[in-house]
Parts: sequence; structure tokens; C-alpha cells
Amino acid sequence: MIPRYSRPDMVAIWSPETKFRIWFEIEAHACDAMAKLGTIPKENAEAVWKARDVEFDVARIDEIEAVTKHDVIAFLTHLAEHVGSEEARFVHQGMTSSDVLDTCFNVQLTRAADILIADLEGLLAALKRRAYEHKDTVRIDRSHGIHAEPTTMGLTFARFYAEMDRNLSRMRDARAEIATGAISGAVGTFANIDPAVEEHVCEQLGLVPEPISTQVIPRDRHAAFFATLGVIASSVENIATEIRHMQRTEVLEAAEFFSMGQKGSSAMPHKKNPVLTENLTGLARLVRMAVVPAMENVALWHERDISHSSVERNIGPDTTITLDFALARLTGVIDKLLVYPENMLENMNKFPGLVMSQRVLLALTQAGVSREDAYRLVQRNALKVWDTRSDFREELLADEEVRAALSEEEINEKFDLGYHTKHVDTIFARVFNEG
Amino acid sequence: MIPRYSRPDMVAIWSPETKFRIWFEIEAHACDAMAKLGTIPKENAEAVWKARDVEFDVARIDEIEAVTKHDVIAFLTHLAEHVGSEEARFVHQGMTSSDVLDTCFNVQLTRAADILIADLEGLLAALKRRAYEHKDTVRIDRSHGIHAEPTTMGLTFARFYAEMDRNLSRMRDARAEIATGAISGAVGTFANIDPAVEEHVCEQLGLVPEPISTQVIPRDRHAAFFATLGVIASSVENIATEIRHMQRTEVLEAAEFFSMGQKGSSAMPHKKNPVLTENLTGLARLVRMAVVPAMENVALWHERDISHSSVERNIGPDTTITLDFALARLTGVIDKLLVYPENMLENMNKFPGLVMSQRVLLALTQAGVSREDAYRLVQRNALKVWDTRSDFREELLADEEVRAALSEEEINEKFDLGYHTKHVDTIFARVFNEG
Amino acid sequence: MIPRYSRPDMVAIWSPETKFRIWFEIEAHACDAMAKLGTIPKENAEAVWKARDVEFDVARIDEIEAVTKHDVIAFLTHLAEHVGSEEARFVHQGMTSSDVLDTCFNVQLTRAADILIADLEGLLAALKRRAYEHKDTVRIDRSHGIHAEPTTMGLTFARFYAEMDRNLSRMRDARAEIATGAISGAVGTFANIDPAVEEHVCEQLGLVPEPISTQVIPRDRHAAFFATLGVIASSVENIATEIRHMQRTEVLEAAEFFSMGQKGSSAMPHKKNPVLTENLTGLARLVRMAVVPAMENVALWHERDISHSSVERNIGPDTTITLDFALARLTGVIDKLLVYPENMLENMNKFPGLVMSQRVLLALTQAGVSREDAYRLVQRNALKVWDTRSDFREELLADEEVRAALSEEEINEKFDLGYHTKHVDTIFARVFNEG
Amino acid sequence: MIPRYSRPDMVAIWSPETKFRIWFEIEAHACDAMAKLGTIPKENAEAVWKARDVEFDVARIDEIEAVTKHDVIAFLTHLAEHVGSEEARFVHQGMTSSDVLDTCFNVQLTRAADILIADLEGLLAALKRRAYEHKDTVRIDRSHGIHAEPTTMGLTFARFYAEMDRNLSRMRDARAEIATGAISGAVGTFANIDPAVEEHVCEQLGLVPEPISTQVIPRDRHAAFFATLGVIASSVENIATEIRHMQRTEVLEAAEFFSMGQKGSSAMPHKKNPVLTENLTGLARLVRMAVVPAMENVALWHERDISHSSVERNIGPDTTITLDFALARLTGVIDKLLVYPENMLENMNKFPGLVMSQRVLLALTQAGVSREDAYRLVQRNALKVWDTRSDFREELLADEEVRAALSEEEINEKFDLGYHTKHVDTIFARVFNEG
Repeated sequence: MIPRYSRPDMVAIWSPETKFRIWFEIEAHACDAMAKLGTIPKENAEAVWKARDVEFDVARIDEIEAVTKHDVIAFLTHLAEHVGSEEARFVHQGMTSSDVLDTCFNVQLTRAADILIADLEGLLAALKRRAYEHKDTVRIDRSHGIHAEPTTMGLTFARFYAEMDRNLSRMRDARAEIATGAISGAVGTFANIDPAVEEHVCEQLGLVPEPISTQVIPRDRHAAFFATLGVIASSVENIATEIRHMQRTEVLEAAEFFSMGQKGSSAMPHKKNPVLTENLTGLARLVRMAVVPAMENVALWHERDISHSSVERNIGPDTTITLDFALARLTGVIDKLLVYPENMLENMNKFPGLVMSQRVLLALTQAGVSREDAYRLVQRNALKVWDTRSDFREELLADEEVRAALSEEEINEKFDLGYHTKHVDTIFARVFNEG
Repeated sequence: MIPRYSRPDMVAIWSPETKFRIWFEIEAHACDAMAKLGTIPKENAEAVWKARDVEFDVARIDEIEAVTKHDVIAFLTHLAEHVGSEEARFVHQGMTSSDVLDTCFNVQLTRAADILIADLEGLLAALKRRAYEHKDTVRIDRSHGIHAEPTTMGLTFARFYAEMDRNLSRMRDARAEIATGAISGAVGTFANIDPAVEEHVCEQLGLVPEPISTQVIPRDRHAAFFATLGVIASSVENIATEIRHMQRTEVLEAAEFFSMGQKGSSAMPHKKNPVLTENLTGLARLVRMAVVPAMENVALWHERDISHSSVERNIGPDTTITLDFALARLTGVIDKLLVYPENMLENMNKFPGLVMSQRVLLALTQAGVSREDAYRLVQRNALKVWDTRSDFREELLADEEVRAALSEEEINEKFDLGYHTKHVDTIFARVFNEG
Repeated sequence: MIPRYSRPDMVAIWSPETKFRIWFEIEAHACDAMAKLGTIPKENAEAVWKARDVEFDVARIDEIEAVTKHDVIAFLTHLAEHVGSEEARFVHQGMTSSDVLDTCFNVQLTRAADILIADLEGLLAALKRRAYEHKDTVRIDRSHGIHAEPTTMGLTFARFYAEMDRNLSRMRDARAEIATGAISGAVGTFANIDPAVEEHVCEQLGLVPEPISTQVIPRDRHAAFFATLGVIASSVENIATEIRHMQRTEVLEAAEFFSMGQKGSSAMPHKKNPVLTENLTGLARLVRMAVVPAMENVALWHERDISHSSVERNIGPDTTITLDFALARLTGVIDKLLVYPENMLENMNKFPGLVMSQRVLLALTQAGVSREDAYRLVQRNALKVWDTRSDFREELLADEEVRAALSEEEINEKFDLGYHTKHVDTIFARVFNEG
Repeated sequence: MIPRYSRPDMVAIWSPETKFRIWFEIEAHACDAMAKLGTIPKENAEAVWKARDVEFDVARIDEIEAVTKHDVIAFLTHLAEHVGSEEARFVHQGMTSSDVLDTCFNVQLTRAADILIADLEGLLAALKRRAYEHKDTVRIDRSHGIHAEPTTMGLTFARFYAEMDRNLSRMRDARAEIATGAISGAVGTFANIDPAVEEHVCEQLGLVPEPISTQVIPRDRHAAFFATLGVIASSVENIATEIRHMQRTEVLEAAEFFSMGQKGSSAMPHKKNPVLTENLTGLARLVRMAVVPAMENVALWHERDISHSSVERNIGPDTTITLDFALARLTGVIDKLLVYPENMLENMNKFPGLVMSQRVLLALTQAGVSREDAYRLVQRNALKVWDTRSDFREELLADEEVRAALSEEEINEKFDLGYHTKHVDTIFARVFNEG
């Protein structure tokens, strides 16, 4: 985790304080369930809740762990300091450390997912607003980085919306995947603990009981979770890449927001760098790099080995914190993105009218010109535009052979931008589920 | 694709013949829709279906492509050879090559998904059968490769079932993700083609229209698809790893099937190698390695660049073929896995009774012995077993200090295996959705 | 392996014919060594060489393997069909299949490395030639996609040269890493075969004996090899990315070669797509994806498991064939790259003179203007250029406050391009080891 | 970076204090060089060294950065607070931030490499010591997890030594790769700074001048560096996997050290978990996951974009800290590894004598028995051992058909362990470069 690429709410999920708080809740709810079953005395279960409002002392727990060499035991010892040794004696009975650790990890991932879902919703709102704002802002579409045919900036925002909407759906699935808990004892057989305890604890924490666990919750769930983060990060990179392209000096169709008074990194006013989206490109790599190790974690030896643990201590916080930051940063970029419609037109007309050459070709053939001749006619006029940046429409109008096939009106009609944007509403209706 | 790790049905999906067949269907259905809209003459649309039963000549198409340097044009030229130049003149009108290529790719991935879904269903059936067969076959559970507490082989199969059942659900989601088509023209604006054409083609091919495409279908869908394959492959590795462990000489609780008459790779009858599951471990790596490039493919430049194409030409066939083969191989392994219950008991009793030490410890403390004393008592008897492989229960019965706290009956009760297996039915009911 | 992205020499290395040829040589040389040691009769060793010029019949070997289920045994059986059963009876004595397989694989990788080294040398020659050709071709340097300060196209080629020169050196190291052989018997102890046999075989095949092998050659060597290919592929992507940027419509400082008569994919002459370099970007991903599985292959169980094998059957051919093709394609692209110096100047002057603003700022402060005032002066003139695309130098000359600090001559001097290119020779001398 | 998996010396390299210290040295040495060239006054260069012993105030620099939004400017401002504004006015002249940042990063990586080199040397010493200690400790070799033929524990240590020795060599190469610096100005053209400055700074910092840089040092160097760490981590996993296997209950040929008095995590004395090596397996994944992003960092746009930066802020510290910790932990594990020679013999004889069956088979054929008969004879005796765990040698001695071919002496000779270990000295001499 790199502090400068983090936001406090997500960081808080991964703090020791939060972790111990969740551990406490797991243990306390488990005691409740055991008391209800009659496994432990009711008063002991109630006593645990004395620590309900305690802010656990991380330093003290670390101190105990330095002696016991075991984090859960250290916590339980500290908990007993609050609850009373005698009262606390049934806490954790029949449970294994992993019951606490794995259930807690999934609570943290579920909460992280909630933030990421909210992030995505915020991003979608920004994308939608900008899409409608620029629904009719014409710009040139590019394949291979080369001008193709006209589109609108609104469609660009709309396709990012559709992509992020899919990501929202994936994130919700990933949340559901990971929202399970296990209180199933040393090897998952419930030998020393009743399944009813698991049910109660999970219900209280908003989780579903893991149908079958070993000592641990199966790691295919986590692999699917981190893979989903990787897909979302890749979409972040996709949008960031578009903006980086739009901001480059020669294109300049959009730019990350800056206040005009703002002192640039140098004296050069043209030097407004797309550093936020470049940064997002790098952050995407960081989120994505966790996918393979999360998959390598699936194949644990027999009922568990602990190789997954160090990996998750890292990627659990790092990927969720980084992706949360990235989504928020991207939302800000989209929200305030400077869009330059005039430059869009200027770029489109770098070779005036040339982007319409395909329509002209089609019109010629439809007018009965052979395909070979039509191609020759279009190309000879296009090359003039290419060489001299004259106006393609005017060249065509002046070409007798062309005029023999197409009237002035017919030629002019081919340069109507509306032809290309006539289905924008249809597409918007699809993407934004209108009407 | 490595021929020895492939199966014909999946390979067939990726053959040139299948590809051209799908291309034909896309073009023919598109003509139908255009005829219905009145964009092209009805007779031309009908004429295309003359090629309905044609087996397209791959060599001939390659020959044409060598001249045109364009695969779709080569195909269309060849199609015209069957349909007639004049009749075929409206084929592909207003479409872009990617309309055909991307829609076809998604048809192929959807069909591949169907096979993988069937594979998973077959694997689940095998796992379920073996789970019930060995529901009560006791074996020792292991964490960290070290004996923990008793479980049953049925639970092992059941947890693999549950994991693969989640994978089945993921695979179905991935199929739904990828079952989209796009017939939206050069840059996705429908400038030269009506959205109704897309709707018709998709409906005929069992796809959903992509709500918004550019020249291509957005690649986050494919990233999610290949990530799912990666998760499933990781689960394959998980099961394979368990079997490899079970088969190792010192454990020998299970073995990949071999017929006794079969000549081993050497004279040594003990040398029955788990080569199928080792192979599965390697195949899992091959499927997994496609995940990151699939994610790198998401960020295309502007409305598309073609960097994704070479990646997909490789990972499209390779991952689906490999995973299909792996799932089928794994199903065979599970189906015929030799299970050795006697060896399971022998292993569990390597240090006779020692796996029950935790229950004895608990019983002592519950009988009023202090935690420290209880630990000391258990450990001194356990160490004897550790050193001499005597019987732990007998050592306890002979220890006066232990007997002062626990009766013979109480001690014996701690060695009841039924204690550990009492919730097997509960877990089975959860996993297999019984009752 | 995708046929369209392959070249015959590299493909040939991975053919069954080549493989069997290498197997033959290993066995025959081993026989020679054993005969020299007196382990087997000299005449039997000599007899093996009867097959020296045999083209092994792959179909026949496959046929035998279908029965024996063992590739090496199938080959030896077929070899005996050429040599004579009696004469061939000592072939492979004391050896294990992996002695043949692993040594052969390293021979193949070494030969592949030789081709890749030659590829890199070819690429370096092209880069060097273009670097000198455009040593003084001024273009604007860009950081963050934004104009920075002038440089030359020659320096761009030169830095790619330097990068590929490092890759050449890495490739040579990787070749040395992998050029080992092992003929050490079933578990690497030489129990049934003398180390002298290994020495002889390795010497004959241009390899070094592996100092200590198990049944297999240790896989860290292969991991290092494939990692090197991954680095080189990343450099290919680096160069490809530069060219893709240069070719985009708005930049157009360079383009992949096309002949003017050539019919584009459409009627649009501006639509010359950088498809080769886009393809290279995708190919780089394919090479890179092999790195992690090659690293996962290192940790084999005990003295070997066979999980690495399926991975290597894939990545051995696929990465070397793909990288060979990519390097050759890149060499062609560089060799024939169309460079447009006029467009470079036009781009640089999109905001005339503005790229010199930093030098002016510096000059003002050196002339005693405070940093704040200098910044203000530069910025107000820069903004005019930014808004109206007037000439920055002329704006400065017309600004009285600026002129109070700097003379006309001093101002003009700041717009001297030579200032930025004065160390080009120095850098060339470093890169190309001149003088 | 996870604190519990870190060691202070490596962590210190990545502290803000160290970073600012290196920045200071770069700036101060650069001033020296500029003074020598006469570019800046000598007294100003000398004045900078007033800060020679200053411990830079990180909080203060952060405070300034909060205003300036630029880390290098914040540092320079703070430096001026120590040196004096007037005296400090020439600091950083003609340089760009990346000159400082990139050169500093390489200094840090070089120092990290030095620690890793020392770590590897320590590990090699431990491996060598244990190798000689157990040169003659016989154990069974295993392929596919199945008993093969006898080897010695010393050979196991020796092969890990050889592997890590290669890693040492790779690490030294990686260090050399990364030990470059660049002080080449805004876009690497030395427009505002003399190459002699770069030479001086690099010499003082133990670096080599980067032959050609842009704004940044080319990232293929870093990709190669992190790839090397990935290979080493994979070797760590390799050794860790061996130990995990050896420690599993059924094998128990070795165990991570624990003191007998030590309280386990439970009452079970058999429950000594290989948690250190399991942890190493996970740490290997963490180091390895940085390889692909480091390769993705190579293709920067034009002369640089900043996408690499966030990636390196993470993987720079994280991978070096993790690998340092892993190597040290592994050294400790090797150093104190408990080795159980008696269990090795017991395991080898699980099926008494059976591991020698191949030699008997060979002897029978050499004695003139046909291959089919020999196989039948060996197998029928082997199966008895397999079923009843009787002694293979005794079964053979009692088999008349066998005895017809082989004398008692000849049979006994086949069970001589010395046959398998006769070349241990040869191999040791190769690995440890003896004699």
C-alpha cells in the first residue's frame, strides 16, 4: 500500500483496530450461539459483551503476541483483560484460529466490496452526466489511431459507462462470492462446535455460512474476487488510455482539469500533463498483478497450508485500497474533464472532408460506376487533399467524371454529419435503459 | 494448442471450416434482415442461402487471401463463387469486417463455454458419486501436511464438488457475458446499417446485441471470460494436488487407476506415478497464463487497435481446448480413482491414538485440571507415543495422574471416531442440497 | 503457435523430425562414450551410426508409441528397426528418458537462441542505419505525450539500438544458461552410467554438462531463459508503441511502409494503419505470458515431477517462434519505416516557438529578472501563442518588459535548434562505441 | 510491504531519510562538477556540502510538498533552508527531476542488490555446510512423489547450492544492469547540462552513466532486474517445497527447527508445522507477481510517461524487502534444519528392498534371462513385498527360478547402497569446484 494512493475509509477496513473489532464480534456472537445451545453458561456469553465499546489496544496485543507467538491467542488474552479471566473462559471454545481469521478476512473483503460498489456507482453517475452533455459533440472515431468516421464524444462516454456498468455487476457478484463465513472447528468437521454457531455468527455479520470448509474457507472464492478487481482495473486503464490520447499535444480534444491560475511544473503553458490518467495506468498494473498469486493460492495442500496467508496480507489491502483510489481518481477526472469540441472539429478536418470518402465511394457504385472506376475516382481526389489539404468536397465537385455520376446535391449530402449520428439516441436508449 | 492435450469437439469449434460456417451464417442472416428492411432485394438475400449446405473450401479461401491480403474479403469472394457474383453483391453491405470477426469469435467462445459447462457437469457427477461412496471412509485430515484430526474421504470429495459447483456457476456467468454480437458498422454508429440487422443476426445465433460497440465488441467481456477459465484451472490444480499427495509412496491413500496386468514404466510395482494429475497441474498453468494478456487487451486505443487480435488467436483456442481436456481428464481420474481405506487408517495411526490428544486435553481441563497441568499430562504421554509408537490411549490409562481426573470409560470415549464424523450428514445436505 | 506468426527456420527446430534427429545423436554419442569406456562393445556403438543419414519416420514412431505409451521407447524401437535389434541392444543403457528429453530440449532452446541472437543483430543493424540517417532530423521530444524540447529522430533510433543491444547481451547470457546437458541416469546419481558419457555427449552437442541434475535439469535455468524472452518482447512493444504513436493521423511523423499503388483496406488514402506494430504489441503479450508459468515450473516435487512438461511443450516452441517472428517483423518495419521530417517540424511548431519557453525563462532570470516576474512574462506571451498560435519569438520581441531584459539577439539565440542537438554526437559515440 | 516480513537494513534503503540523503548527494556532486566546468561558482558548490551531515526533516519536506505539489522542488526548498537561499541558487541547474529520481532509484536498487547478494552468500554457506554434513546420509530419491532409487541428503543440499549459486551469478548481473545513473536534463539531450556532470555524479555514486537516456533511464533494465528477483524467488519456493514435503507426518525426514520445550500451537507434539517454508512459498508468489508489471513498464510513451512510477513505488521496496526476508528466513531454516537419517532409511525400506528391483531386473537379463522372463520374475517377487512387506532380497533368494540365474552373492550385491552413492564425490567436486 502506498499512502499517496489511498483513501481513509478503505484504509480503515484494514487497520488492526478494525480487525480486532471484527474478531471480537465473531467471538461474542459465537458465545451467544453456544449459550443458546446450552454449550456454555449464558452469563459467560453476556459477559463478553462488556467489551462491546472497548477500543482494543493494539500495542498491548502486540506485546502479548511477542510472548505467545500467536495472534489470536494474544487477542483472546487481551480480551480476557477486559472481560475477566473467569468470565472469558469459554470464549473461542471448539473454534480454530482460522474460523476467526478467515471469517474476518471475508468481512473485510465484503466491506471493501461495498466501497468499490459505491465507487463504481459514483463513476457511472459522472460518465452518464458527461455522456448526455456531449451526446451531440461530434468527433472523429479512430481505429488503429487513424481517423475513421465521425462519432460523438457522448458515445465515447456512453461506452465507458456500459463497460463500468458491467463491472458494477461483476463487483456485486464478487461481493456475493466472498460474503461467506466459517465457524467449523479445527478441520471443518464441526467436531467440537455445532453448525448452529456458524449460522448465528454469519447471520449477525451479514454473511452466508460456507457450505463446506476445511480449516479454511476455500480459496477459489478469493481467486474469483481478485480476478474481478483485475478486470475492473483493466477498464480503468482503458478509460485512462483514451484520455491520455486525447490530451496529447497534437490531439488536444480533452484535458485533465487544471485551473488557469495554477503554476505548471514549468513555464510552458502547453505543458499540461495527463499525470492522473498516467498514474491510473500504473495503478491498473498493480491491481492486476494480484490476480495470478490469488489463483496460485487455490491449490492448498490437503485441508490447508499457510502459503496463501502472506500473499493475502499483501493483496487484500493493497488491491482494494489501490482500486478504490483509482476509481475515485478516475471519477474526479471524468467529472472535471476539459473537453474541446472545437479541436475535435479541427482534427476531424485535418484533411478536409476526407473522412467521408467511403460514403462517396459507395454513392458512386450505387450510381452505376464500376467498383474499380469508383475507387480510382475517389482516390485521385483524396490524394489531392492528402497532398495539399484542399477540401475533398470541392475537389469532387470540380471533378467532371465524378459529376457525371453524382449531382452537386448528391455530393453535398455525403458530407452531412447527421448521417453518422442518426442512431446516437438508439444507442443511448440501450446503454442507459431509457424508455 | 498441443494435440495430445486436446479433444476433437472443442478443436472443431476452432477449425477454419467452423469459422467460415459461422461467417456465412452471420452474412446470410444479415441479408435476410436487410431484405426485410427493404435495404436490399429479397431475391439477393434468398440467393445467399444457396450456400447453406456448402462445405467451404479452406484452401481456396487461403489462395484468395494470399492475393487480397484480407481474410473477410477472401471469404466473401469465395462465397460469391457459390452464390453468384451478381446475387452476392449486397452481402456484407454496410458492415465492417469486425462485425463478422467479433460476432464469430463470441459464437465460438459461447460454444466452447457450452462444452466446458458439460465438462463441469460430468465432473460434478463423478465427484458426487465418489463422495457418497466414501462418505464414511475415515482418514486423517491434514493441515500444513501434518496430521490434524479425523475426517472422511467423502468430505474431501464433497468439498471438491462444492468448489466445482461454484465454478459451474461462474462458467455460466462467463458464457452469458460473452454471448453478445455486434453488427454496427465501421465504428459502431450504425451509420450504414440498421440496428435491426444486428438484432436479427444475434437472435438467430443465440446472442444478445452488444448495447454499444465501437468497431469491436468491448474486451472487458473477454477478460472476464478468460479470468473465469483461470479460476477453474486453479481448482483443477487444487484437486490434482490432493491426489498427487495421496499417491506418494509414504501416503498411498489413493492412486490414479491402472490395471494390475499393465506393464509399468519399469520393473517396480511401487512405481505407479500420478502422471495424469501432474499433467493437470501443468495444464492449469497454461490456462492461467492467458488471464493477464486478456486483461492487457482491454485498453485498446480509441475505438480499437488490433493488438488484441494475435493474443486472441492464441488464447481463444488454446485455453478452451486445454481446459476442456483437463476437465475431462480430471473426471476420468476421479471416476476411477483407486482409494485405499486401509492405508488411511494405517496412516492415521502412525502414532497410535495421538490425533486424539486435543480431545483428551479438553476433557482434563473440563474435569477441573488446570490448563498447565493438563498440557503437561497430555504432552508426557504423547511424547512416549512419539518416541516408541506405543498406543496413546493405553499410555493414558496407565498414567495415574490422568486416571485421577478421568475414568477408563471417559478416556476410551475420547477415542471414538464417531465424534469427528457426526456432522458429515449435515455437511452433505448443505453441499448436495438434500432435503 | 499461430502459423501466420511464424518463420520456417524456427518452426523446424521444433518439428518431430528435428527432435528425433537430436535424440539419435544423443544416443549415438552416448554409445560411443560407453564403448570407449568398455561398457558396451565397440561394434554396437558403431552400428548405431548406420542410422546417421536416416530421416526418421514420425508416423511409424507414433504408431509404436500408441502401443508402448512411451515416446522414448517408441523411438528406440524404431531406431532398432534401422540399426538391427541385436546391434541396438546397448543403446540407452543406464540412461533415463529424461536424459534424452531434457538434453534435447536444451539443444532446441540453444538453437532457438542462436536464431534470436541473429534476429537481434539484424534489428540492430537496421536501427543503426536509420539512426545515422536521421541523426540530425529534428523532432519534438514528448513527455506525458506532451511536447517538451527538441531532440532528433536519430536519438530515438539510437535509444532503441541501445536497448536492443542490452537485449542481445541478455540473450547471449540466456543461451549460455540453457546450453547444458545431462546424462546422469534415473535420479542423477550416475549409478548406472559413467559421468564420462555425459561429458562426451555434451561436448559433441556443444553443451556443458549440468554440474548436478536429478532426473531432470534444474528448471531455474529455463525460468531465466523465458524471463529473458519476456524482457526482449517488452522492448519490442516499446518500439512498436513509438511507431504507433508516430503514425496516428494527428502526428504522422512516420508510417509503416506501403507502396503508393497499393490498395488500402478502404477508399481512404489517409487510412494507412500501423497494423504491423499493433500486431507486435499483441505478440509481446504472448511471449510475456510464458514468464510466470516458467517460474512456477521451478519448484518440482523432490527429484522431479512432470508438471513442467506440458507447460514446456507449449511455451518452448510458442515463445521462441513468436519472438523470432516479432523480431523479424520489427526489423522489416524499422528498415522501411517512412519518416516524415516535415511533419516533425510542423508538429513542433504547432504552437510556434513555444517549446523554447523554458530557455527564455532561464535567460530572463539570468538577466536579473526575479523568478516570479520572469515566469509572469513568459506566461503572458505563451498564452497568446496558446490562444492565437502566433509566433512566440515575435511576441517576446514585441514585449517591452521582456526587451528591457533581453536584446533581440539574445532572444533570437534562444530559438536556435542547435542548442538542443549539440550533444547528439557525444551520445552517438557512447551508443555506437565510436572513437 | 508487510512489516512482519521485513528486515531493517533493507527497509532503511527505502526510507524517506535515505532517499533524501541520496538526492542530496546527487545534487551536491552535480554542483561540484558544474563548478569544475565553470558553469556555477565554486563557492556555491562548496556551500551545498554544509548540509553534508544534516538529517533531513521529512515532515518539513512533506509540509513544503503539500504547497508546491512537487517532491523534488520541496526537497530543494528545504535544502536551501540549510544551505542558504543565495548559496543554493545554482543547485539542480539544468537538471530535471527525473535525473534525481531515476538515479536515486538505481542507487537504491543497487544497494538492495548488495544486500541480496550477501543474503545469497549466507544461504550458500549454510547449504554447503549441510551438504557436506549429509554427504553420505542415504535417502530415497523420488520422482513423481514415488520412490525411485537411493541418493544422499548431501546431494539434495548440493543441488540447492548449485541452483542458488546460479542465482548469485544472476543477481550480480542484475546489479550490474541497474547500476547506471542519468543526469541528462529535461529530455536526455544534455541541452542544459554538460555530460561531464553525469560522469562525475555517477562515478561518485558507484554508477555507470546511462549511455542514452530520455527524461528517464530506460525501463528494460528494471524489467530484467525484477525478473531476476522472480527467478530467485522461484528457487526459494523450490527449496521450501522440498522441506515441506520432508516434514509431512508420513515422511518426516526433516523438520524446521523447534526447541523441545517449546509449546506448540496445540497439545499435539506431532503437530510441528512447516510454517516457515509454507510462508516462503507465499512470499515467492509476492516477489514473482512484480515481474509482469515491471515488463509492462518498459513501453513508455515517447520519451516517457509516468505510468511506471506508481508501479515502482510499490515493487521497488516490496520485492527487495520480501526477497531479503525470504532469503534470510530460508538460510535460518537450512542452518537449523532437523534431519532424521533413521526415518530416511525407514521410508526407503517401507517396501523392504523394493527400490533395488531395477538392478535385479538388469542383472537377470545380463545373466541371459529373456527380458520378458526377467520382468515376470522380478514382478512376482515384488508383488509379494508389495502385499506383505516382506523383504525383497529374501524373496529373491527363495525363488528357485531366480537362483537358477543369480547366485546368492550376486543377489546380495544388488542391495549394496554404495552402488548408488559411488559418484557423490564426483558431483560434489563439480558443484563446489573442488580439486
